[in-house]
Order: sequence, then C-alpha cells, then structure tokens
Amino acid sequence: MDLEKLFKPKSMCVVGISKKNPLSPGRIVLLKNEFEMQVKVYGIYPSGGDIEGIQLYERLDKLPEIPDLLVIAVGPDDTLDYIQDCADLKIPAAVIIGGGFAEIGGKGKKRQESLIKIAFDNDLAVLGPNCLGVYAPPLVDTIFLPTERITRPPKGSVALISQSGGVLVDQFFVKFNERNIGVSTAVSIGNRAVVDEAMLLEYFSQVDPETSNIAFYLEGFKEGRARQFLQLAKKSEDTVIVFFGGKTREGKVATQSHTASLAGDFKIIYSALRQYYVIQPQNERELLTSLKVYDVLSKRRNPFGKNVITHGDIAIVSVSGGHAVIASDMLKEYGLNAVRFSHQEKMELKELMNPVARDIASFNNPIDLTGSVLDTDIENIIRYLSDLQNIECIILLLLPYPPNISFQIGRRIANIITYKNKPVVCFVPYVPKYSLIIESLELANIPVFHSIEETVQAVSALKERTRIDNLKISNFFDKKSS
Amino acid sequence: MDLEKLFKPKSMCVVGISKKNPLSPGRIVLLKNEFEMQVKVYGIYPSGGDIEGIQLYERLDKLPEIPDLLVIAVGPDDTLDYIQDCADLKIPAAVIIGGGFAEIGGKGKKRQESLIKIAFDNDLAVLGPNCLGVYAPPLVDTIFLPTERITRPPKGSVALISQSGGVLVDQFFVKFNERNIGVSTAVSIGNRAVVDEAMLLEYFSQVDPETSNIAFYLEGFKEGRARQFLQLAKKSEDTVIVFFGGKTREGKVATQSHTASLAGDFKIIYSALRQYYVIQPQNERELLTSLKVYDVLSKRRNPFGKNVITHGDIAIVSVSGGHAVIASDMLKEYGLNAVRFSHQEKMELKELMNPVARDIASFNNPIDLTGSVLDTDIENIIRYLSDLQNIECIILLLLPYPPNISFQIGRRIANIITYKNKPVVCFVPYVPKYSLIIESLELANIPVFHSIEETVQAVSALKERTRIDNLKISNFFDKKSS
Repeated sequence: MDLEKLFKPKSMCVVGISKKNPLSPGRIVLLKNEFEMQVKVYGIYPSGGDIEGIQLYERLDKLPEIPDLLVIAVGPDDTLDYIQDCADLKIPAAVIIGGGFAEIGGKGKKRQESLIKIAFDNDLAVLGPNCLGVYAPPLVDTIFLPTERITRPPKGSVALISQSGGVLVDQFFVKFNERNIGVSTAVSIGNRAVVDEAMLLEYFSQVDPETSNIAFYLEGFKEGRARQFLQLAKKSEDTVIVFFGGKTREGKVATQSHTASLAGDFKIIYSALRQYYVIQPQNERELLTSLKVYDVLSKRRNPFGKNVITHGDIAIVSVSGGHAVIASDMLKEYGLNAVRFSHQEKMELKELMNPVARDIASFNNPIDLTGSVLDTDIENIIRYLSDLQNIECIILLLLPYPPNISFQIGRRIANIITYKNKPVVCFVPYVPKYSLIIESLELANIPVFHSIEETVQAVSALKERTRIDNLKISNFFDKKSS
Repeated sequence: MDLEKLFKPKSMCVVGISKKNPLSPGRIVLLKNEFEMQVKVYGIYPSGGDIEGIQLYERLDKLPEIPDLLVIAVGPDDTLDYIQDCADLKIPAAVIIGGGFAEIGGKGKKRQESLIKIAFDNDLAVLGPNCLGVYAPPLVDTIFLPTERITRPPKGSVALISQSGGVLVDQFFVKFNERNIGVSTAVSIGNRAVVDEAMLLEYFSQVDPETSNIAFYLEGFKEGRARQFLQLAKKSEDTVIVFFGGKTREGKVATQSHTASLAGDFKIIYSALRQYYVIQPQNERELLTSLKVYDVLSKRRNPFGKNVITHGDIAIVSVSGGHAVIASDMLKEYGLNAVRFSHQEKMELKELMNPVARDIASFNNPIDLTGSVLDTDIENIIRYLSDLQNIECIILLLLPYPPNISFQIGRRIANIITYKNKPVVCFVPYVPKYSLIIESLELANIPVFHSIEETVQAVSALKERTRIDNLKISNFFDKKSS
C-alpha cells in the first residue's frame, strides 16, 4: 500500500464542514490547511456556497480535480459512503476523524470490517478511524484541534506515530517544542483499521528521506502485526523507539476502556523487542531525552552523525562541585563510568587553568572548575579532553552564574567541538536569559539539557543506540556468511 | 547559639570591597543589599571614600553602630582577624565567603580550628567559610553572584539548606522559580565550621514562623552531629526533607574532592532517616515534586493545610485516554490505587456529562472525558468525586486543547475545590498560553504539574508525609503513656 499521498498530498478535500459551528472539526481542518499549509484545499458542502471566502463544492465528483487526500469528518455511516466514493473516484488516501467503529463494539465493529474490505480491495491508504490524522509540514495538517490551542514542534528528524491523539499533541508536540526536538511527520493512527504501525515503520524507514528516528506510542501491537513490525525494525537503518502504554495491570485496564486494542504480555514483548533492536524507554523523560539526543546529533555532518559510545567511558566537567557529585551518583545506574586520569594528565589539566582557579579546582574525574573559572579555562579543558582517546564523551555541566563566564561561552565551546570527533552533551539551566548560550550550542548541533539527570541519561541513550547498531551490523554479516 | 541575627539582621557590614573590580564578591554583596534588600548596609575600605555613592568606613570600630551581621570577603588570615573583631565588638553574626580553611587541608585545617574556638567561646553565629551565605528576603542577600545572573525563587514555606552553593542557586532557585515553589530562607553552609545542619534544623523548626518545610542538600552529616539532627527531625512539626549527594561510590569520590566531608554509609543512613521521620527523595525530580506539593498545600486554610492520604486511594480524570493510560501505569510503583466505582456511581457519572461526550467517554477509573468535554462536565465530575468518601485524592489531567474547554476552567475548578476537603493535583501542559489556567489553579492553592509522572509522584509524596506524620503522632502518645 502506497502511503505517500497521505503525507505528501498536492491536493486535499474536506467533508463534514459546518457553516454554523466555527469549532466543528471539518471547518477547522479546512481553514488551517488553507491559511497555514501548502496543500491545495477543497471543501464539500451539500448546497455549495463558501466559508471565509473559500468556495465549497456540492459533491466530490464536482471538484475541478481528483484530490490526493480526503479528510472525512462526518458520522460513521456517511463515512463508509465516502470511503466507497474514494474507491470509485480513485482518491488514493483518506483520513477518518470520527469514531463509531470498532471502539464502540457491536455495529461499530461491523462498520470497521466493511471499511477494511473496501480499503484493501481498492488499495486505499486509510488512516483511522477515530484519530487526528496527519501533521506533515509544510504540506498538510489534519489535526482538528485549533492550531492556536496546540503547539507545533520544530522541523527535524523524528517521525512520530501515536495510538493516542492526546499523547501526540501533548506529550510529543508540547515537549518537543520545549526541548527543541524536531519532527519530520506526525501520525495519529486511532483504530488503525487499515494503515497500521508496521506499514508506517516500513514507510518511514524505507521511503521517507527526512526521517532518521521513528518513535511510537503504542498500547500494544495490532493483532497479527507484531512479527512484521519486528522484522522491519530489525532491518531498519533508522533508530526505532517504542514507548508503551498499558504495561501494568492498572494501565491495561485503562487501555481497554480507551481503545479496542488488547495490551500484550509486556515481559515477553520487552525481551522480543530488545532482540529485534527496538529502543524502549521506561518513562516519558527517558523517551524525550533519547529523542532529543538522537535528533540533534543526526544533524551533525559525517563522520560525526552517529556518535558511538561503546563502553560508556566519560569525563565530567562542572562549574559546581555539587552538580559534579549529583551527576557522579547517577553514572553506574546509567551504565557509564568516569575515566581515571593519570597523574600526568591531572598536571596538564591544572596547567591549563587560570592561576586563581588552579589552586581551588579539582582535576579528578569529575573536574570541578569552581566559580573562579574563566571562558578560556573551559575552552582549554574541553579541547584537551576532546583529544584523549580513552574518553568517549564529555558531560559539561555549565552554570553561567559566575561573573567571569561570558555570554560568548556557547559559541566558543561550539568552535572547538565542531572540529573534534567527540560527542559533548551539555547541561545549561533553563532560564530565558541563558538562551543565548543554549542557542549557540544547539545551532552547532551540541545537545543541551536542563536537568542533570537528563544530561547523563542522554549519554546512556547514545550507548544503547551504539549497542543496537553493533548488533544490526553483526546480524547483517552473519546473514551474508551463512 | 542564637541564629536570628544571621537571618533577621537590621544592619550589616561588608569587608573585602574592591574599588577597581566591580565583580569582586564584597562589592557585589554591598551593592545588592543597598539596592535590592531592606537591611541597613555599611562597607569597610581602609582609606574610606565611597563606591556608587555609598560611604565606606575605615574600620569596624568607626561605624556609626555595631552591625548585626558581618560579611567577610577577604583572604583566610585576614578573615580570622575579622572574626576576632566580631568577638571584641560584640557583632553577633558573620558570613565567611572565602575559602582557605579545612577544604584545603594542612594549615587551612588549623585556621578552621582557630575559627571554631573564637566562635564558640564568644557565641558567634558564623556561617561558612567557603559559602554563599544567606538569602533571607526581604532583609538580606549575601550571595556574591550578580543577581541579574541568577534567579530568585518566590516567597514561600520552604527553608533551604545546601552544602553546595551551585546546587542552591541552580537546582533549587532556578527550578523553584520555574515550578513556583516558595522559599522562606536559603542558606549555603560551606564548610559548616560553626553553624551546621543540626543548628539550622533547630532554628527553622522551632524558631522561624514562616517555614513549614525544611529541605537539605547534604553530602553527609557533619561529624558527630547526625544524632542531634535525627532527634530534632523526630520532634519537628515541620516536614524535613534531605537529598543526599555522594550516595554511590562514584559520587563519594566526587564529594571528597569537593568538600571536606566524608559521605557515610548510605544504606545505614537511609534506614536511620526513615526511622527518624525524614523524607529522602531519590532524585532531583522527586525532591522538587515533593517540595512543590508541600509548599502549595501548606498555604491552604485549615483544616485543609495537611492533606491526608493514608491508603493512596485515588481517582484519575483525564481529557486524553492516552494520558489516563500512562498515569495508570505508574500507580502501583508510586503506592497508589485507582478506586473501583460501583455500577451506580458509573451511571451517575455518566448522567453528569453532556449528551455528545456521554456516549464516548469512559467511566471506569481512570475517567476518560474525551475531547468532546465541556467545562460543565469537568465541574460536575470534580464536584461529584470530591464528595465520595472512599477517594482520598483526585488526579486531574487537564489538556486544554479541545475547543470547548474555556480559559475560565481553572477558576471554575478552583471554585469547587476551595470548599471541599479533598486534595486535587493537576496536570496542565507547560505552555505560556495556558498560564491563565495554571495561575487560576495555583492562586487557589491547587498544585499544578507539567508532566504526568510528577503529578502522580506528588500524590505519592503526600502519602509519604501522611505516613510520617502518623508515626510522629503515635510516637508522641507512646511517650506520654510510658
């Protein structure tokens, strides 16, 4: 099934527009695509006329062209009629916003069966029902919530696929925006009657060139599709991340009332997924931290795109002794270890510091620069550590409170890091006045976090990706030699 | 030892002011107290003169009055002379900013011994050395970092005591400001040569009326003071929270290079502290979440000030099914359980909803209101659940994205909650445009969090405090009857 018309439509049409209610889903979708997106938009209204200057057509067969995508925002029985129209008129893709299908049981299940039959018989890429649809900037946005109410994430490398529309617009969009994580395309799959998580994994890993990380929120796999999903993940060159809802008995009860899906036995799924090279964050923060570091580093020029951390050997550089302690306390839990510096290295590090700070700073690992630090000290130490072969990654805990740290410090660090083949992950406090420093670092594709734990966790996420990438490579060679 | 002059000085004097360097610690402290705080400020400069219009005096004995507090920002040997001056002139309190004492070993240790002897012989309340000192709004602020570089937290119920100045201004101040957690007084104790954590616990729990929560960042107890600390915690009516740095071997290595303290055996300390009724968050987020919910609820009028959660029996109300699932997945881990509604209760809940949402909403626990929810539905359901005796707390996951939720919703919920004796903890996305809703709730002392996990964790923190309060009460009666 070709999904391209879902995500790259040249034209679309909306059915289910209310002339009376400005908040009706169909009307919101019509206007936001007309005003904010690049797709050519048509609207259907039985008696024609117009809305906010947009001409409305009486029926699909009266449109000046066959659209690539139909957005259906009407009741369930009318929805089935429109899906039949898609088949008859050769409209290749549809998004069904409304509910009244499998999630209500009984006759809803029968409707969903009819829908599935028409779609597969006619090779229609149908998303939903009971979903928000597609956000594929700059072309199309079928999310029927008013744009001014939600938050759009920046453009980037992560494809998002969510079984819950609420999770998509809140746990992903809002938090992506807050953390500056970039999205290529976002998909709300609802009942996933036709287009499902496996098809989307195939599309984003094999077809879409903008995506290099594919993240899912699922409350279980669609029946009969887990095997296909796992096989696709195994051979994907992109990083595949799945966050599951309904992992516990309590969560499972909640999913059953929320969607028609039955959460599987998660202990079995968990180990199967590990075997099939899927990254599984255990909580929302781990999910976001992983996606952030994967997205930012995916923008670095080769050969730095995939930052390899095999052993977890790191150095910590901190402006505050307390921060260094708190970070060190987390290392073991996150599978990392602070490399021991030789006596010679400690002496050399000390020589790099200004004379005042030199005597009070500490050159173990963690390195505590103290509040007497100058910009040049940070530059010299980062440059020195970047050249040490036994350090795989530098964690820089950068507190810009001491008066001698300048607001150029972000750019000065970026100038060094850009030409070194060593990942650096930074902590900078999340305060508007420090956005100058944060932006200097992130423009140079150095990931910045705002809690000590997320900073350490991000390095751990790079180590987990390295482990999976190595497994994929050895699996590839195993196949070749057998 | 009377600490009141440290925190409530009417007058203070600064020594160690540079006329050449505007960033010297003494000069920053002088000016920030003159311009921003209420204390009467004097400065000492050997040749007199003035700085930015502030008259400087040649010696302490030339001041027009004996100040309550002396802030010392000079080298370590001169520092000892000034401490002797405090004794001679009967200046009752001092903050020593500079280092060069026990933390450098050798002669520094001897200096610290001299300091301790003078202070205890003369009953001088000396803070430090090697510290940022005191932030006690609106009177005094000895933090020598420029105010425009750091962030001041709002005023509130939490006394903060930190062994690391960096942790105080970053992990506490910045994150308190971000989360709207209020501080009564903040103290950086540095080497804690004289004034230590036990004295401060005594002061804040027994003397200071503004404080009802006392939070510590410690890298171990001061030698010989753990027992006193624990006894004070046991009889404190305030909630005592300790977050430890240096809990692991790796962290312990870092503390030894950072402060003179030796981190104890944390497994033993952990169980001792539990026994002595101290709350010990395991990570920075748990620390902040606990302090937030304790601070906000401490502002509620009696009898609602101490929100009691004995069993952890809760109800979840969500606008998004996915959010309800994610929250449910965390319940068991956080010692909470979703109460089962009777058939009768489910029918009554359903009746309270608007006709459109009624048929698609779910009335199990979690309650999924769906995107078709109206303000009145949320009001009616919160009012109904508030009156159910078997529910100890309501978790409200409020996503304001559906077009029919108004921006009055925060106030409308507050109107109900204020007159019900039931804690409600809310999740609202952290987006500037929703600050109207967030502020409506927080002005009515309803705590708002911005991640699902923090929201659930906050309820767990109330349960932990209830457990400790109950232990303290039974301990009190045991003593009476024996």
